[in-house]
Amino acid sequence: MQRIQRVALVGGTHGNELIGAWLVRKFSDQPELVRRSSFETLTVLGNPKAVSLNRRYADQDLNRSFATAELERPDTTAYEAERAKVLWHRLGPNGETPADVIFDLHTTTANMGLSLVMVKPDPFNLKLACFLRQKEPRVRVYCWLDEALPRRSLNTLAPKGFVIEVGPTANSIVRGDLFRATERLVGLCLDFVQAHNEGQVTYSGTEELECFSYLGTIDFPRDASGQPVAYIHPSLQDRDFQPLRPGEPLFETLSGETLVFEHSRSEVYPVFINEAAYYEKGVALCLTERKLLRV
Amino acid sequence: MQRIQRVALVGGTHGNELIGAWLVRKFSDQPELVRRSSFETLTVLGNPKAVSLNRRYADQDLNRSFATAELERPDTTAYEAERAKVLWHRLGPNGETPADVIFDLHTTTANMGLSLVMVKPDPFNLKLACFLRQKEPRVRVYCWLDEALPRRSLNTLAPKGFVIEVGPTANSIVRGDLFRATERLVGLCLDFVQAHNEGQVTYSGTEELECFSYLGTIDFPRDASGQPVAYIHPSLQDRDFQPLRPGEPLFETLSGETLVFEHSRSEVYPVFINEAAYYEKGVALCLTERKLLRV
Repeated sequence: MQRIQRVALVGGTHGNELIGAWLVRKFSDQPELVRRSSFETLTVLGNPKAVSLNRRYADQDLNRSFATAELERPDTTAYEAERAKVLWHRLGPNGETPADVIFDLHTTTANMGLSLVMVKPDPFNLKLACFLRQKEPRVRVYCWLDEALPRRSLNTLAPKGFVIEVGPTANSIVRGDLFRATERLVGLCLDFVQAHNEGQVTYSGTEELECFSYLGTIDFPRDASGQPVAYIHPSLQDRDFQPLRPGEPLFETLSGETLVFEHSRSEVYPVFINEAAYYEKGVALCLTERKLLRV
Repeated sequence: MQRIQRVALVGGTHGNELIGAWLVRKFSDQPELVRRSSFETLTVLGNPKAVSLNRRYADQDLNRSFATAELERPDTTAYEAERAKVLWHRLGPNGETPADVIFDLHTTTANMGLSLVMVKPDPFNLKLACFLRQKEPRVRVYCWLDEALPRRSLNTLAPKGFVIEVGPTANSIVRGDLFRATERLVGLCLDFVQAHNEGQVTYSGTEELECFSYLGTIDFPRDASGQPVAYIHPSLQDRDFQPLRPGEPLFETLSGETLVFEHSRSEVYPVFINEAAYYEKGVALCLTERKLLRV
């Protein structure tokens, strides 16, 4: 496999997810922390305007703004559409400093622990995930195996890399424990890239990796005006990556009723349960299936 | 002590603290839940514009907009300054439907558990706090005993009542466990008012109530541009209402240094540790002293 020439560490793609934004600041001030001998490391503040506003985005979600058709549209006006183009011209395959790998640092209000969100489950990414799980068993891998799903996140600018998604945490704060854990994972990722470049990584297909593969989403029950009329049932809250079976509680309505989970599968694994930013996207939780991949 | 004629339940004073806003919606749809025979109960959405924006406030913090001088100023333009006047004319002592008691429902990103924030520690409020602690031992009381502190919160509109502040939770979500806990506390508060009106509460001064009394605040260390350069030390995070002693870790800087707590007292009790909305107010945590009050 080809050597990696350049890695981009991106934080603040969502302006109120402070851990990534602060880590980028830390790494910019102390570049020796992310320097490795065999490749170049860039640190990039994804959405400076949203960071200064202390909001997820100014006009639209930057991390949904990288579909090729959108990047090629000449008539966009939203701040994030412009910002996506700037990052594309900088880090994209034909950019000024094309990134071979992007690690994009996020947080979530859901109990995702230390998770990787992977829209390109290629051998490099999967092998890196194996390496991280060996060093840090709490790491979970959430991936999109279905190639028909729309790829429009920042990570799609580079052939390799993924989102590092840690939680639960409120937005607009830095929790020290998750800051430290994210920093540690970034260091391990860079160590892996270095080992890869030194030919110390073998892609033999002999390892097994547990992945949680996207199946779909479930919205909150809503009234005629679109307002949610139920919240995640307390017995489901915080149970990301744990099995959910038909008949188990899903929502509790404002009128006090329990709504149970219904599904054709005997067992699925919910993720992003009660992520604040997904209320407006019509997503109360995402469903995945557990898979073992050969790596 | 006088009978209570009218109680106002307010939620959504901060627009992204959804539990209060959703509880007000629930109680408006099902008024029998908050109806008691001896007094009237009003349900009030504190800051409708901020709720619809899904932000703490539109122009300024509503819960700092009730200083008498501000309410009497004719030339205000901020949305929340106008909204404060509307609520004053409605619920204030000379308003259309003056509230004798206000319970204002809030959430926090800090680990405040189930807490009461009391700017008027009068016998009624303190006795009610005792009652709540008997029914729910997790309840903690944070109060402002120093009469020189500025009273400008929504609660100051009424002679009695307090903030019910639950956490930790992210903003812009509803956690079912905290929703249920808040609803239960509201019910207990209303039961107490009913018992008070029925003459079943005796204000004998024979009970003892543990209170955490405001001493001051500590800001994050910041750089010349005002950016925080440290986060709450992981060993302090989530330790609200637990003793903090000089020499114990307070912050961890982005350069990796531990800053320790310094204080003239041998022990204080921090609250609101790492509350998201306080970053902009220059507050990383508040300090209190533990006191036992006769009630």
